[in-house]
Amino acid sequence: MNIAVVGLGLIGGSVCKALKANTFHHIMGIDTDPETIRKALEQGAIDEAIDESRLSEANLTIVALYPVPTVEFVKKNADKFRKGSIVIDMSGVKGYVVKNCTPVLDEQGVIFIGTHPMAGTENSGFDYATATLFRKASYILTPTESTPQIAIDLVSTLGACMGFGQVVIATPEQHDANIAYTSQLAHVVSNAYVKSPALFRADGFSAGSFLDLTRVAKLNEEMWSSLFLCNKEALLNELNIIINSLGEYRDAMVNDDIDTLREILKTGRERKEKSMEFYGQERK
Amino acid sequence: MNIAVVGLGLIGGSVCKALKANTFHHIMGIDTDPETIRKALEQGAIDEAIDESRLSEANLTIVALYPVPTVEFVKKNADKFRKGSIVIDMSGVKGYVVKNCTPVLDEQGVIFIGTHPMAGTENSGFDYATATLFRKASYILTPTESTPQIAIDLVSTLGACMGFGQVVIATPEQHDANIAYTSQLAHVVSNAYVKSPALFRADGFSAGSFLDLTRVAKLNEEMWSSLFLCNKEALLNELNIIINSLGEYRDAMVNDDIDTLREILKTGRERKEKSMEFYGQERK
Repeated sequence: MNIAVVGLGLIGGSVCKALKANTFHHIMGIDTDPETIRKALEQGAIDEAIDESRLSEANLTIVALYPVPTVEFVKKNADKFRKGSIVIDMSGVKGYVVKNCTPVLDEQGVIFIGTHPMAGTENSGFDYATATLFRKASYILTPTESTPQIAIDLVSTLGACMGFGQVVIATPEQHDANIAYTSQLAHVVSNAYVKSPALFRADGFSAGSFLDLTRVAKLNEEMWSSLFLCNKEALLNELNIIINSLGEYRDAMVNDDIDTLREILKTGRERKEKSMEFYGQERK
Repeated sequence: MNIAVVGLGLIGGSVCKALKANTFHHIMGIDTDPETIRKALEQGAIDEAIDESRLSEANLTIVALYPVPTVEFVKKNADKFRKGSIVIDMSGVKGYVVKNCTPVLDEQGVIFIGTHPMAGTENSGFDYATATLFRKASYILTPTESTPQIAIDLVSTLGACMGFGQVVIATPEQHDANIAYTSQLAHVVSNAYVKSPALFRADGFSAGSFLDLTRVAKLNEEMWSSLFLCNKEALLNELNIIINSLGEYRDAMVNDDIDTLREILKTGRERKEKSMEFYGQERK
C-alpha cells in the first residue's frame, strides 16, 4: 500500500524508518524542509518525496505534526485525500484534533483516527529519528463510534509493524485526561523543579532522585506550550491537584505534625506500590 | 584499627560489608536485633558483636541510625567513647545532628564529624546491604572549624575504601539547604504526584516521564517524616518555591497566555541544560 507521511521530524521520521525496516509498503514523504527530504531519501527512510497534490495516491496518510498544524493541514487538504482512505495523526492531544478533523474528513468520505505513540526523546527532528523509537511502547488509538473496525485493525497492525508493544483504545477525553497526568504534568513539575535558586549551588549533592525528577525539564517549549493549551482543562485539573497535595505536606511541616506527615507519606507510598502492580510491568 | 558500627541497617550493614571487602580493619557491630547480628556475623560483615560498654575499644565509631536516635545514642554513651577517638554519623540531616553531638563529645575529648553518604535504595534493612552501595557516590563531610585535619583525612580515606567517588566538604547549613533541594523535595514531590485520582485509571498511558517522577514515591515514611522535620526550615523553603513556580504555569494556562507559558518552559529548559554541565557528569 501507499503510505504518505507528513512531517519528517522525530516521530514522522521514526514512522518512516520503522515502516521501511519492517514492511514492504511504499512510503511517500512530505516535509517543508528540503534538507530533511534529502536526508530521508538518502537514508532510505522514504521511497519518494511528494507534495500535497499527490495525497490522493495514499491509502493511508500519517500526519506527524504538532496539534495546531495538524488541524490546519487536514482542513487545508481535506479535498485531496483519497475517498475511502484513512488519515491518522500522531500528536499528543486527541480531543482537540479529533473534534476538528473528523467532521471535515467525514464530509469527504475519508476516515480519520486520532493516534498517539507513547514514545519520544528529549531531542526533536529527523536527525534523532530511529526505526526502534516505538519499541515496546503503548500506541493509543481514539476511534469514534462510527470508525470502521477494519480501519482500526489496519492501523493497529501497522502499529505492531512499527514495534509498539500494545495498542490501547480510548476515547479522546480519556486519552487527554490520562495524558495530562502521566506525561504533561510530569513535564510541568520537572520544569518547575529546576526553578529553585538551589539548582546551581548543589553540585556534588545530586542524588538519583534529583536526576529522575528533572530529566524531562529539558523539553521543547514550542511543542509543549501548544500541547498544554490544547489540553487545558485536563492539565489544569492535575496541576491544581498536585499543588493542593504539596500544600498538605507543607502544612503538616509548618505545624510540626509528624503523625500527619508520616500518614500522608504512607498513603503516597501505598498508592505507588499498588500502582506498580500494573505500571511496573511497563518498560522504562 | 577497630571500627564500631552502630545500627546494621541498609547503611550500617553496607558500611560493614564495604569495609570488610576493602580494608583489613576490625569491625565491631552493635544492633538491637539479635537476628541482624546473627546474619552479619554469618556473612562476615562484622568480626564480632559488641555492646556499648566496649565502645572504648574503637578508634572510630560510625553511628548509622536515624537523626533523632543518633543524637540519643551519642548523648547516652558520651562517656564510653575512647578519648581522642572519632565518632561520625551517617544520617541525612547535618545541622540538627552536628549541633547536638559536637558539644557533648567535645567535653569528652572525642572528635565528632557529621557525614552523609549520598546513596541508598528504596529498601531498608540489613538484608539489602551490599559492599557496593556507595560506589561512585558523593560522600558529604561537615566538619567544624575546630575539627583536626587529620580526622577529616582519615574519614575521607575510609570513604574511598568504601567506594565513594568523591568527598564533598560543606557546612552543616549548606548540606541541609542542598539536601532539601536535591533529595528531600524530590521525595515530597514524587509522593505528592501519586495522590491524583488519575493514578489508577491511566494503565497503558504511563510514559517514562511518569515513571521517573514517581520512582521515589515508594519511600520509608518513618525515616523521611523524621528527616523532613529535622530539616524543617530548608525543606519548607524549597516546598514554597516549587508551589509558587507551579502556580506560574497554572496562571499562564488559565489566561491562555501561550507566550508566557512558552517563556516559563524555556527558562526551565535552559536552567536544566546549564545544570547538566556539572550534574550530568554524575552517576545516575
